[in-house]
Amino acid sequence: MKNYKLTIAYDGTPFHGWQVQDNAETIQEFIQRALETILRHPVKIIGSGRTDSGVHALGQVAHFHTETEITLYKVLGSLNGLLPPEIRILNLEEVPASFHSQYSTIGKIYRYEIFLDPVLNPFKRGRAWHIPYKIDVEKMIQASRLFLGTHDFTSFANEAHEGTAAKDPIRTLQRIEFIQQDGALSIEFEGDGFLYKMVRNMVGTLVEIGSGKREPNEINEILEKRDRRAAGASAPPQGLFLVKVIYALL
Amino acid sequence: MKNYKLTIAYDGTPFHGWQVQDNAETIQEFIQRALETILRHPVKIIGSGRTDSGVHALGQVAHFHTETEITLYKVLGSLNGLLPPEIRILNLEEVPASFHSQYSTIGKIYRYEIFLDPVLNPFKRGRAWHIPYKIDVEKMIQASRLFLGTHDFTSFANEAHEGTAAKDPIRTLQRIEFIQQDGALSIEFEGDGFLYKMVRNMVGTLVEIGSGKREPNEINEILEKRDRRAAGASAPPQGLFLVKVIYALL
Repeated sequence: MKNYKLTIAYDGTPFHGWQVQDNAETIQEFIQRALETILRHPVKIIGSGRTDSGVHALGQVAHFHTETEITLYKVLGSLNGLLPPEIRILNLEEVPASFHSQYSTIGKIYRYEIFLDPVLNPFKRGRAWHIPYKIDVEKMIQASRLFLGTHDFTSFANEAHEGTAAKDPIRTLQRIEFIQQDGALSIEFEGDGFLYKMVRNMVGTLVEIGSGKREPNEINEILEKRDRRAAGASAPPQGLFLVKVIYALL
Repeated sequence: MKNYKLTIAYDGTPFHGWQVQDNAETIQEFIQRALETILRHPVKIIGSGRTDSGVHALGQVAHFHTETEITLYKVLGSLNGLLPPEIRILNLEEVPASFHSQYSTIGKIYRYEIFLDPVLNPFKRGRAWHIPYKIDVEKMIQASRLFLGTHDFTSFANEAHEGTAAKDPIRTLQRIEFIQQDGALSIEFEGDGFLYKMVRNMVGTLVEIGSGKREPNEINEILEKRDRRAAGASAPPQGLFLVKVIYALL
């Protein structure tokens, strides 16, 4: 039995998220189906984590097992030939049996894209949150510093399903970087892990601060409350990109 | 009679280019139709120049005349409401009667996007020329310097229709800039004007040089020949962006 790691980029627009579900076209399902066509046996791929409907990835990671002998570059080419062009396998490599795309992660990088000009650039459709009114980016940067370090992020986590709150809501964020260029504001988050909808909830709250609805130092109080209702609304999915999944050297 | 200037961005993918033609959906036609709906009289918009099917714009410019009193921000909002989301009017302003979007230009900036990684990033679909083999970018940079300055660019111009060669094929290029980031190679051209398909023909020839099919200094010979057949094949349309149309201060 061999273990293989896939690195995947996708434009999430036309899919119902990563994870296989009934009666909906998901990214995981497209890749599994393509692998099954090539390997001629049932395949289960396991991703580093789910992404919601409309969320994008530049470097999602998944792994799968097979006993079939495979030629890496050939399978990579066949996969991309079978997949819709919105999903691209960037890399396929053999990894040790101990590698698990979810449990072996030591960190993740997400980027959230906001577009601030009054009229949405047509190249940002489905790829950014369009905010056509003035927001105070300096206040957002100031507030974002309060997320850095180790905190209980319960207030910024949704339950994926009723009663599925993370058992351990403690996460550490090492880096939050703001990049402003032309009308685009991009916020990059690097941490040891992220709770469900955590980035979108942090961004939604930061935008409420930038809009003057909240003060930057409210972040501390919200974190302390450990209550999702204390934080702001979720930012919409189309601005979110899973940039990179980080593993210790194998 | 008042004169108005439109600044327009579009994703050229779904359209048959800028210019109105029979039995095809063009960008000019969509904008004219939207303006006619708002102004309730026939409108003819004149663009700074055509763009071909699949070519994009970040800052195309057009002008039109009307005797109807208009409120700029209201017409701007109505236009974007009526237009498909791939076409956005970024700005609408009144200009002196003497302003002509084509004849008043003193320069243009085009960008050509190439994507060099073996697998095409899904966010570059329809927005770059995918070259999955190795090319020598240094040689392309070296060759591009020979385009700078004032030359007869006949060898890099197509005839839009049989027998429509430009009467004056002399153009001056002030700047050609290469920007490489991740897998993307972007080449920006600034000049006092460009002949039909000139940027795509220059890029196609530069890529033949980068691929080792031609030597960098061949550019000089090609220019001297004043024959389209001397240069390389056209680069495909989807990598080309009209970035900016430059006018003297009005």
